Amino acid sequence: MKWEDGKRFAEKKEVHAAPFQVRTDLAREAHDLAREKRTDGSAVPGVRIEEDEDRGIRVSWIWVENDEGSRELGKKPGTYLTLEVPGLRSKDSKLQHRVAVRFAEEFGRFLKETGVSDDAKVLIVGLGNWNVTADALGPFVVKHIMVTRHLFELMPEQVEEGYRPVSAVSPGVLGITGIETSEIVHGIVEKTRPDLVIAIDSLASRSLTRVNTTIQVADSGINPGSGVGNRRKALTKETLGVPVIAVGVPTVVDAVTIVHDTLNLALAYLKREMGKEKSGHPLDPVNLPDLRELEEQEITQEMRSRFLGLIGGLSPEEKRQLIHEVLTPLGQNLIVTPKEVDAFVADIGKVVADGLNCALHEAVTIENVSAHTAG
Amino acid sequence: MKWEDGKRFAEKKEVHAAPFQVRTDLAREAHDLAREKRTDGSAVPGVRIEEDEDRGIRVSWIWVENDEGSRELGKKPGTYLTLEVPGLRSKDSKLQHRVAVRFAEEFGRFLKETGVSDDAKVLIVGLGNWNVTADALGPFVVKHIMVTRHLFELMPEQVEEGYRPVSAVSPGVLGITGIETSEIVHGIVEKTRPDLVIAIDSLASRSLTRVNTTIQVADSGINPGSGVGNRRKALTKETLGVPVIAVGVPTVVDAVTIVHDTLNLALAYLKREMGKEKSGHPLDPVNLPDLRELEEQEITQEMRSRFLGLIGGLSPEEKRQLIHEVLTPLGQNLIVTPKEVDAFVADIGKVVADGLNCALHEAVTIENVSAHTAG
Amino acid sequence: MKWEDGKRFAEKKEVHAAPFQVRTDLAREAHDLAREKRTDGSAVPGVRIEEDEDRGIRVSWIWVENDEGSRELGKKPGTYLTLEVPGLRSKDSKLQHRVAVRFAEEFGRFLKETGVSDDAKVLIVGLGNWNVTADALGPFVVKHIMVTRHLFELMPEQVEEGYRPVSAVSPGVLGITGIETSEIVHGIVEKTRPDLVIAIDSLASRSLTRVNTTIQVADSGINPGSGVGNRRKALTKETLGVPVIAVGVPTVVDAVTIVHDTLNLALAYLKREMGKEKSGHPLDPVNLPDLRELEEQEITQEMRSRFLGLIGGLSPEEKRQLIHEVLTPLGQNLIVTPKEVDAFVADIGKVVADGLNCALHEAVTIENVSAHTAG
Amino acid sequence: MKWEDGKRFAEKKEVHAAPFQVRTDLAREAHDLAREKRTDGSAVPGVRIEEDEDRGIRVSWIWVENDEGSRELGKKPGTYLTLEVPGLRSKDSKLQHRVAVRFAEEFGRFLKETGVSDDAKVLIVGLGNWNVTADALGPFVVKHIMVTRHLFELMPEQVEEGYRPVSAVSPGVLGITGIETSEIVHGIVEKTRPDLVIAIDSLASRSLTRVNTTIQVADSGINPGSGVGNRRKALTKETLGVPVIAVGVPTVVDAVTIVHDTLNLALAYLKREMGKEKSGHPLDPVNLPDLRELEEQEITQEMRSRFLGLIGGLSPEEKRQLIHEVLTPLGQNLIVTPKEVDAFVADIGKVVADGLNCALHEAVTIENVSAHTAG
Repeated sequence: MKWEDGKRFAEKKEVHAAPFQVRTDLAREAHDLAREKRTDGSAVPGVRIEEDEDRGIRVSWIWVENDEGSRELGKKPGTYLTLEVPGLRSKDSKLQHRVAVRFAEEFGRFLKETGVSDDAKVLIVGLGNWNVTADALGPFVVKHIMVTRHLFELMPEQVEEGYRPVSAVSPGVLGITGIETSEIVHGIVEKTRPDLVIAIDSLASRSLTRVNTTIQVADSGINPGSGVGNRRKALTKETLGVPVIAVGVPTVVDAVTIVHDTLNLALAYLKREMGKEKSGHPLDPVNLPDLRELEEQEITQEMRSRFLGLIGGLSPEEKRQLIHEVLTPLGQNLIVTPKEVDAFVADIGKVVADGLNCALHEAVTIENVSAHTAG
Repeated sequence: MKWEDGKRFAEKKEVHAAPFQVRTDLAREAHDLAREKRTDGSAVPGVRIEEDEDRGIRVSWIWVENDEGSRELGKKPGTYLTLEVPGLRSKDSKLQHRVAVRFAEEFGRFLKETGVSDDAKVLIVGLGNWNVTADALGPFVVKHIMVTRHLFELMPEQVEEGYRPVSAVSPGVLGITGIETSEIVHGIVEKTRPDLVIAIDSLASRSLTRVNTTIQVADSGINPGSGVGNRRKALTKETLGVPVIAVGVPTVVDAVTIVHDTLNLALAYLKREMGKEKSGHPLDPVNLPDLRELEEQEITQEMRSRFLGLIGGLSPEEKRQLIHEVLTPLGQNLIVTPKEVDAFVADIGKVVADGLNCALHEAVTIENVSAHTAG
Repeated sequence: MKWEDGKRFAEKKEVHAAPFQVRTDLAREAHDLAREKRTDGSAVPGVRIEEDEDRGIRVSWIWVENDEGSRELGKKPGTYLTLEVPGLRSKDSKLQHRVAVRFAEEFGRFLKETGVSDDAKVLIVGLGNWNVTADALGPFVVKHIMVTRHLFELMPEQVEEGYRPVSAVSPGVLGITGIETSEIVHGIVEKTRPDLVIAIDSLASRSLTRVNTTIQVADSGINPGSGVGNRRKALTKETLGVPVIAVGVPTVVDAVTIVHDTLNLALAYLKREMGKEKSGHPLDPVNLPDLRELEEQEITQEMRSRFLGLIGGLSPEEKRQLIHEVLTPLGQNLIVTPKEVDAFVADIGKVVADGLNCALHEAVTIENVSAHTAG
Repeated sequence: MKWEDGKRFAEKKEVHAAPFQVRTDLAREAHDLAREKRTDGSAVPGVRIEEDEDRGIRVSWIWVENDEGSRELGKKPGTYLTLEVPGLRSKDSKLQHRVAVRFAEEFGRFLKETGVSDDAKVLIVGLGNWNVTADALGPFVVKHIMVTRHLFELMPEQVEEGYRPVSAVSPGVLGITGIETSEIVHGIVEKTRPDLVIAIDSLASRSLTRVNTTIQVADSGINPGSGVGNRRKALTKETLGVPVIAVGVPTVVDAVTIVHDTLNLALAYLKREMGKEKSGHPLDPVNLPDLRELEEQEITQEMRSRFLGLIGGLSPEEKRQLIHEVLTPLGQNLIVTPKEVDAFVADIGKVVADGLNCALHEAVTIENVSAHTAG
């Protein structure tokens, strides 16, 4: 059936539009990659970073301050807030509670830093495809957002202190509506005139460990090619005429990345194992995670070749290109998501929705948020 | 919690905005009511009607030709197409198939009568609340619509003959988005410039028998107060700037109507029973359905009083008002839907979606429609 | 297609198996009906009743003490606990919270009265059809039950004080599985040997006001013909070999009942209106609800005839039979449910699940129940 | 909260019960692995294989004929039917149709080979967790199975020729019910006495390419440790007392496998690239897929070391163990599924359900199957 060919063609075109590159939508990862490349270990120019870790929640603020920083990170200038919580996958409801509280606080600070006033009218946009669990974070969050704009419109005198007008939509994706998401959002923004758009999206990460454990907030909006479903047009202050804050959670990773990272980790692991043999000290599993950081500085080219032969001698870019070429014709070059994606998206989606509800309305707290949304 | 009070207040305000009236969104029912009131049995002035019945499918075309007809029916001037298929509830897949075919044919004729060209760009809008099954027909239909607009936009040279650009959205309801549905639709229409909007909606009926067995098509758009969820603003050619065809299916009925209709039917039934006793002929169950029609003409005021006392002596309006007053303070004045609403909405929603897909694209037939939508 | 005929035949046979009768699964309603019939206003013999009302929650305990009481109520001997909360429909989260607390307390007392020990192993069975919202209460509750039996089986030494082994299943309905529900439950009971079965079911009510606002607990199990889906075989201590506690919520009402009740209410309303005219006192809307109770005692046969003519002169049974006969051939004799059934079932289902979780485990309270079930 | 610790502990215990091994539930993959190890290229002893390929559908029958074959493959003796259809992912509705027809034919042959009579009563069991999309294939298929047993029980004289009694259940998983799946199935089998159990399950594969493109049918039942959710107890003829046919579709793959396979493929790719350079012939992308087969025979140990250094010199088992050790402490040792898992499970689930419906009832064909199941 020709019709189907056409549809598939369109889908493929959309998917394969971009030449291969390491898919990361996270400034945190882009920063780590940029650091890796700086053999002298110096800071990335044009980029400022602030970090803090508290009982399993790592918060980092990254400011891409100029075009040089932007080029280094491949990210637009702006502010990037990241919460990393590896424990989120373990279904610990106390931790989830703490993350929601912390996310609400940091998001409140983000609003202030971005100059958003306390009574600014907010439109929340849940990007992504509700039929694809790994791309459904946006619609999931919107479903749990406390919507108030109609109360301000219909009976302004009745609304108490401590609330602001919030509206929320999930515009769907091109394949479902036949319309570019940006056109729908644009139309709604023109009709309803919010002071701020908050766009929620599923992202791609370079690392399986970050999938469903990381929340990124950015004031540079949503840009083409980002997101799990390859958003095609920008949602930014330039295109919409109002500030756009993007809230993203990585939910997928590509197979190339898994393979590449594993080879690097294997090198670091082998090096450490050999050191251990010499020193007689046992391997300390608690410190294993920083293998990632040791790797690039301490592993010599000689070791690479010894452990990984010709492949070990390739540059990171060459290695990725090789893996990409090997996997593609075999249909193995897939974007994957953890088997438990349904529960992960629900858990972190609830954290994001609760956090936004609290940050946007002074009268809402983590304690009373469920009465506000369920009632 | 004050917040909740506010929300409830808004909901009630919305629901109880209108003074009591017989809820019918169907021109077919409005016409029958208008006929009932004409004691001389004459045709309703300003209204033309054409009817046809074929193996369980009754098709009627009603043209409200001028203001007089509009006043009589309480419906805007325009064309109203109605398919009534009592058997739709019995889950007969062959009948469903025949209804989809017939609906596609009649809808095609409706497009021609309304002057819509073969290559007109169409936006389909699924009105209603996807969280309320009885109000979810619109979103259900949109989910099964074949969307093509993006193919025409991205690769026009690849699209074959026999298709036209179709887009489709479910904008949600005020309580979910905080935004009037009409604002969202308006914004999308301005950005995407369709030549025609088709709005799908759940309706209220006067009669339980019509619930989920009737499809109405009208060229007068969607008007305030219609629909299961009390749409508040119009979606019409005047407001949107493009023609609007409304496709509606009654999915609810109010308790007042059930009671009122039963009393009338009881009168007709008693009269017939008494006649039967005299003539000695048994009651013919096959002809029972036309009790409804006999009723107003043949039942004398004397019989009404004899059978139903004081209540029987009331005018239809007084009777309805009484029932309304009795039920309201007891919280019984509810809008109800058949227990089987989930399956009914799915069955008739599939018929509407398949019918639209076939009517809008020459290359799509009932035989190949599932390959187009599932593939 | 013959296959479909067969299927429809089976469905009809199931539905129409019982001759017409007033459908009520509620002992509370059966008791009220029995009281109505006692013209001397005396207590129903063989039945003991205890009532209590606190801020919108009416709790009644009815003990059907012997066969005479059983005949009078049409209910098996046993204990019947009823919570009636008309406000449950208004989406008041504070009230929902209070109802869950009260239900947990009363259910705890019910367990004690029924002689269930603190460490009795419990199997919770969610009856009904998850594809039919009005029949989906059981599966909904099971989804929110805290399941612990596998922890006791796999690592008994790790389970703390304050919990007991609870398992939970939704066995589906005959049309979905091809198997009688009772056979599935029987098989599971034999394999897992619980000390108590709690069966959750959707019920039919005589009154729209009780739909989704009432919870009934009974120790007489589930009996044929009860439930929204016409359960066909018993789940009782006799059939399963372990005590069975039934928890039911009315979610549907039949059209006959709506009409019949409205006529009775209309009589009471007219009588009061006429008295008001005489006395000059305005109608007191707050006291309107007891119209229901005044009605049978104070409305004379003369008034019935005067207001409702021949129909008014019929006995309650005759009246119901008439309405039934009138509605049936017209296909109007439907079982209906409020339009908002989706939200109502979710709200009261959450109350039942939370209440059961708290009542069954000492360590679980309304405050920590969501951490237990979501974590 | 201690309760949560307990729950997590139980989940981990379940997941990590088995020491690391290459997860494959597919006899086809086990056979390929066994062949790989045989350096002389000889057939695997105790195993017979028959293969056939027709327009994108590869059908293979593997008979594990004795204990030797069983040891070689790590699979119980019995018959294994496999359909491999790489194109299934491309949403080609014509191919899906052909696969359903072929699957119905081959499954019919499987029933005959297994000695199942034409009127054998069948119970279909949908294993897996309906809340985890990658584990939800079983429940999805059961939802689309045509259930007839109740018709044979309630009105045997009305059922036409060409049907047999089929019942179907989805028993859930341990974490949802608190009961071992095998206990529930056992209980139902004892009560309903089917002649055959067909168990549908999601499987783990060694290869991303096989995920959601392969259907395996086996007469050895479901065994502990298989399936996406780590089924814990057997469903076999020995445990249930009736023959058990397992129908499985791989929906997940572990990260270790992805890495390992990529390294092997990279070796083959590099070898071919180097040969190409010498011969001057371009790489033929059409033949790339057989890289997999060339690999083990033609790549010498010398090449391995040259290309992959120390790691290349490891045996397959050592290599897998290394990757496993590297990934585990970093939390990267995840089971993953393609991002598009929702659509893939729906597509192949529909193929399996349609195929079973046709194979089990003579009167059902691919042409009329949708009328049977939707009607």
